[in-house]
Amino acid sequence: MTVGLIQMKIAEAQVDNLAKTIDAVRALAKKGAQIISTSELFLSRYFCQKKDDRFFSLAEAIPGPTTNAFSLVAREMGVVIVVSVFEKAGTKYFNTAAVIDADGTLLGTYRKMHIPDDPEHGYGEATYFSSGDLGVRVFETKYARIAPMICWDQWFPEGARIAASEGAQILFYPTAIGWHKNDSKPIRAAEHDAWQTVQRSHSIANNIFTVAVNRVGVEDDLRFWGTSFVSDPYGRVIAKGSTKGEKNIIVKCDLGLIEAMRKDWPFLDSRKIGHG
Amino acid sequence: MTVGLIQMKIAEAQVDNLAKTIDAVRALAKKGAQIISTSELFLSRYFCQKKDDRFFSLAEAIPGPTTNAFSLVAREMGVVIVVSVFEKAGTKYFNTAAVIDADGTLLGTYRKMHIPDDPEHGYGEATYFSSGDLGVRVFETKYARIAPMICWDQWFPEGARIAASEGAQILFYPTAIGWHKNDSKPIRAAEHDAWQTVQRSHSIANNIFTVAVNRVGVEDDLRFWGTSFVSDPYGRVIAKGSTKGEKNIIVKCDLGLIEAMRKDWPFLDSRKIGHG
Repeated sequence: MTVGLIQMKIAEAQVDNLAKTIDAVRALAKKGAQIISTSELFLSRYFCQKKDDRFFSLAEAIPGPTTNAFSLVAREMGVVIVVSVFEKAGTKYFNTAAVIDADGTLLGTYRKMHIPDDPEHGYGEATYFSSGDLGVRVFETKYARIAPMICWDQWFPEGARIAASEGAQILFYPTAIGWHKNDSKPIRAAEHDAWQTVQRSHSIANNIFTVAVNRVGVEDDLRFWGTSFVSDPYGRVIAKGSTKGEKNIIVKCDLGLIEAMRKDWPFLDSRKIGHG
Repeated sequence: MTVGLIQMKIAEAQVDNLAKTIDAVRALAKKGAQIISTSELFLSRYFCQKKDDRFFSLAEAIPGPTTNAFSLVAREMGVVIVVSVFEKAGTKYFNTAAVIDADGTLLGTYRKMHIPDDPEHGYGEATYFSSGDLGVRVFETKYARIAPMICWDQWFPEGARIAASEGAQILFYPTAIGWHKNDSKPIRAAEHDAWQTVQRSHSIANNIFTVAVNRVGVEDDLRFWGTSFVSDPYGRVIAKGSTKGEKNIIVKCDLGLIEAMRKDWPFLDSRKIGHG
């Protein structure tokens, strides 16, 4: 099983980001990627740095223009796609990941549950998004059972645990995380490392793969740190992007390692404390 | 606040291990350590590699000879001690950590909940220990609020989460973990790294300190890998023992970092999923 990650800089115009991402899906698919993920809110600059009601107009329905476009390319290339969407659902707005199967079917969505409310450091997401109301979701795709979660969710072991308990083999975290211009150098290093460590740990504690897909480049006060990566069930990083450059990452994941590791370290089966 | 970790080789005779550990407590206390932890079951060789009813005779009551001895040295030196004990309680046997305050008071015990049942790799603990029946416990000591858990517990994020939610500032994991002679080289490296990563991650996800204290040296089929360490709330390793040598480790922990980090990354307060 092979996954593809699209680590890219985000341009001003949505249409440019859409076209570039579709090109990346095709390129990754041609190289053998079977499940491909975008980064978080890749269609636009990271507008959550500012409070401006006009940004609500970026939201769209699901199904809608973006998921329709990716359904077409999923079917065309025979790939599963995890696509991040700023979703408008009735009167509510969500930070959502849609999962599209290899035949173009929209399998469903996950809505980000943990919404950072930290405008001081550039993450004023509570202005825009309601907390997800769908819980953790696991999707049976053509190539693997996957659970999409989003960015700030990645700091919470609970979501990873629930996903693995419900059969997920790979976690996908579309992400938009970076350094704020006011962060000190030691804090920058600590945060960057902690971000990788906590996700590698989800892999370890649950014997599964974890995929983090981040944007890269400077936007206003944030320098997004890229570093998109894939962790195997032992927490070993088997592919990684740089902190600066764009990259389409492709890497094989031996899903057999999940059950092999569970024979020695059956963490899920030997838990004595529930996860609610 | 300063912690002390006793990473040592375990001799055949219990009395030698007891004397050496009490010496180490005194030495660490003289250097300024305020909370000191033993490794797991440090009084004896790691008997769980074999199934032999005679080993049950190693168990003792709490309070009992071992906790009494450490109460005396705790009061003598004015230090808090986390001491691992093979506990006999009525008809049951537990793998237990006792917490003794700086005035010698036995504050209470934690009984290991996750018992490895893996005789093939040398960890046949289910032969000897019942699963702990006290839940996760947090103790208010003279110097900090601490939660002792034990070895295999360290792979489970739930315990760390509960401890932090109940106010723990430092997790202490007395441990006996090593490489089995039949482990392949890649698996050895992966397990050793995963063991550190998952515990550093408890620090990150909960904004707290984590202390792991492991034995070292070869005993039968296991080579215990030492690597006792302390992680700060960002998952940074601020002190570490080697994989081979004995060491009394001492390191300052700035508990103020806990609240400072929580201002930026308030993981506990922003959780959307309970932990049971």
